[in-house]
Amino acid sequence: MSRLADPAKDFPQWYLDVIAQADLSDYSEVKGCIIFKPYGYALWEGIQHDMDRRIKALGVDNVYFPLLIPASLLAKEKDHVEGFAPECAVVTEGGGKKLTEALYIRPTSETIMYATFAKWIHSHRDLPLKINQWANIVRWEMRTRPFLRTLEFLWQEGHTAHATMEDADEMANAALKMYEDFDRDFLALPVVTGRKPDHEKFAGAYYTMTTEALARDGKAIQAGTSHNLGQGFSEAYDVSFLDANGKAQRPWMTSWGASTRLIGTIIVVHGDAKGLRLPPPLAPIQAVIVPIYKSDEEKAAVLKAAGTLQESLKATIRIRLDDRAEKSPGFKFNEWEVKGVPIRLELGPKDLEKKQVMVVRRDTGEKTPMPLASCTPEAMTALLADIHKTLYAQAKAFMEEHTSSAETMDEFTKLIEGKGGFVWAAWDGTVESADAIKQQTKATIRILGEQKPPKGAKDIQSGKPATMMALYAKAY
Amino acid sequence: MSRLADPAKDFPQWYLDVIAQADLSDYSEVKGCIIFKPYGYALWEGIQHDMDRRIKALGVDNVYFPLLIPASLLAKEKDHVEGFAPECAVVTEGGGKKLTEALYIRPTSETIMYATFAKWIHSHRDLPLKINQWANIVRWEMRTRPFLRTLEFLWQEGHTAHATMEDADEMANAALKMYEDFDRDFLALPVVTGRKPDHEKFAGAYYTMTTEALARDGKAIQAGTSHNLGQGFSEAYDVSFLDANGKAQRPWMTSWGASTRLIGTIIVVHGDAKGLRLPPPLAPIQAVIVPIYKSDEEKAAVLKAAGTLQESLKATIRIRLDDRAEKSPGFKFNEWEVKGVPIRLELGPKDLEKKQVMVVRRDTGEKTPMPLASCTPEAMTALLADIHKTLYAQAKAFMEEHTSSAETMDEFTKLIEGKGGFVWAAWDGTVESADAIKQQTKATIRILGEQKPPKGAKDIQSGKPATMMALYAKAY
Repeated sequence: MSRLADPAKDFPQWYLDVIAQADLSDYSEVKGCIIFKPYGYALWEGIQHDMDRRIKALGVDNVYFPLLIPASLLAKEKDHVEGFAPECAVVTEGGGKKLTEALYIRPTSETIMYATFAKWIHSHRDLPLKINQWANIVRWEMRTRPFLRTLEFLWQEGHTAHATMEDADEMANAALKMYEDFDRDFLALPVVTGRKPDHEKFAGAYYTMTTEALARDGKAIQAGTSHNLGQGFSEAYDVSFLDANGKAQRPWMTSWGASTRLIGTIIVVHGDAKGLRLPPPLAPIQAVIVPIYKSDEEKAAVLKAAGTLQESLKATIRIRLDDRAEKSPGFKFNEWEVKGVPIRLELGPKDLEKKQVMVVRRDTGEKTPMPLASCTPEAMTALLADIHKTLYAQAKAFMEEHTSSAETMDEFTKLIEGKGGFVWAAWDGTVESADAIKQQTKATIRILGEQKPPKGAKDIQSGKPATMMALYAKAY
Repeated sequence: MSRLADPAKDFPQWYLDVIAQADLSDYSEVKGCIIFKPYGYALWEGIQHDMDRRIKALGVDNVYFPLLIPASLLAKEKDHVEGFAPECAVVTEGGGKKLTEALYIRPTSETIMYATFAKWIHSHRDLPLKINQWANIVRWEMRTRPFLRTLEFLWQEGHTAHATMEDADEMANAALKMYEDFDRDFLALPVVTGRKPDHEKFAGAYYTMTTEALARDGKAIQAGTSHNLGQGFSEAYDVSFLDANGKAQRPWMTSWGASTRLIGTIIVVHGDAKGLRLPPPLAPIQAVIVPIYKSDEEKAAVLKAAGTLQESLKATIRIRLDDRAEKSPGFKFNEWEVKGVPIRLELGPKDLEKKQVMVVRRDTGEKTPMPLASCTPEAMTALLADIHKTLYAQAKAFMEEHTSSAETMDEFTKLIEGKGGFVWAAWDGTVESADAIKQQTKATIRILGEQKPPKGAKDIQSGKPATMMALYAKAY
């Protein structure tokens, strides 16, 4: 196994090295599409399993809609088609014949779903309608990077219809909170949440909210988004319902999604110079036992004790005994470190003599002897919980250290080009000012502040009166 | 709710009626593609959950490969491309530009996977390689029917590579047995299993095995297939490994799949004049409590007892209390019957007086009073197990009653056009004879017998000496 690039010197190369050495994905025969290898796909299965439960707890039912969307259907919502059609893969032949109408591979499913909502929704008693699907998506990206940006990706997309704006607001916020809770509890991921400015919103949305994490290289990364779509799609797809007074109304829609990008997010937020560091709820293997021995006699004794330890823990935690004879302990330490396994248990003849096991935490690197009798399911569960807490705290501290505010363009540029991270600045609310800042620094507005700017505050770029506070960062 | 067509008179219409009234799927804006509605998708989730566990128990890892396959890649295995290219949907534009090479939406993934196997397999130590993916598939079908045959469908496809023919045989058989066990234990589905004749095998396979169930209309339906692909794909995609002696060898591949067609299979095998009958392990709702009352006083008492009953059972079985005030008990009986819920628990004032609940089995229609004190989690679990056993026994008896053998073409035609089902007949092993029989009767060979034909047996169509016994049926 070769060494990883130094993340402090070449973060992009380090990212690719981690993926290759942790065996998460491989390149495919199709440009921009990756292969999810077993260890990488196991991360997605973990995410699906936990998030699906949370989605169902919101009263949302899983469904599956077709992959292919007729061009005429996509075209009905003007902003949406302008935003997405240029990114689409287009099917023009099927069954050996040229098609009379082109079919787009779904870049997202609002259009095909809401055309069907028109059949399903008639009365206020049909609302709210709340569905979700786990599906593959294709968007024709030119500059791709494994997990972070790929031509095809996997995601969940929730879609709901409501009788009132308030109900849609509530749903969009509940979905955002679901992501925030999931990010914290399952991925140990601190995020900032808030609304996007209009020029960064989803094509066709009334407003867009996002959860954004901060990578170790100081760039922001979107972890999940939730849109109140307003009534635009209802009008475009002619969805209506009779309210309690028998009056025809347009429902309000929401949609919200999170994707395999979360895998990339975990890497760039929690990874370190030794590779992945997986949050314990996500880790396919939570603890690995590495036996250490020289003679055959030592081998027999150590493997016996290791087997007993594994047996005592396997009902409670996901544990593996790495008894490969052809690999050295050093090789194994390195491999499980790069794969981010939270706990390593080393067991050698000296440990057996002392009736102990060496416990190595992946989060801090701490190595502590623990009496074998104390290495119980309860102790390991508590240790995993502490590792989760520590990963979260480390990422949170990093985010706090890398969140600043700037009152002038000069200060702003120094911060963005210096330590990076999030920078609060007053904004005049115009696309022109935001674009000028993007041109100069590559930083974009990630979310808007909920508080108004201080009295008299001026846009750092235009010098015009500020109407709101914006959180800027360079972003993935 | 309207009535279902009589399955004895118009089985195809009954099938569509059941799907509509059980709310399993809807038609979409794309011809030949269906929408899986929540109750229909829940069936697929149940199938995935149980089968995934069995696949993993075979030592197979889940992965995910790209949806799109370059035309040149698909073309490398001659039989495979001839079989599948005419059925493909073809992407010719992406990101607003005409592509230099067309991309096929995967009709199955042998080609893209095995091209990658060439990178992953070098030594006999890399074998066996065993992977599986849950994915969507597109095949351009002209005559579609919900679940049974759709342009896009969902499936799992297992793909493995082995050092020897024996290992590949063993794997292909293990996959077939996994399907057979799953069919019996999860779907209460009796199947016949065996090899397909060469002219019915998977395009590019060495041999194909299948599990086939028998629908209530006497037609066979394929539930899962397993292929030993031989070394053809290894050669086409240049996959090789060094054996223990350092000699280059071609690995043997297998692939095996089961799809959302299983949902259609459940309908046509277990359904009856009242609708679906779901095997209990699959049923999203295993028991429903329907409260019966007239006065408000009765309502309060009945709902209280129903709530207590639900609470006592919900940790053990998937149970719903149908307390919708706006629907009559009769409406509810009908709805849960058409949706195939295995157990209905009726609770009215008279039952409360007698401290009993009426238990109605969906499999047999039997209605029996049971003391409330006896309606325990253990009793319900046992009843569900008995319903599963009964559904299996009924389907098995039907299959046995509809399995015959014919010694002449006349006998054969009468059987196929009469009661239908499976008919054993001696076959001379030629495509010509099988084709002639298909022309005359629409029956095709489903599987080949393991026993040789009796001495002197002649093909029922050609009159030439028979080389094997074939099991014929009309099929979905």
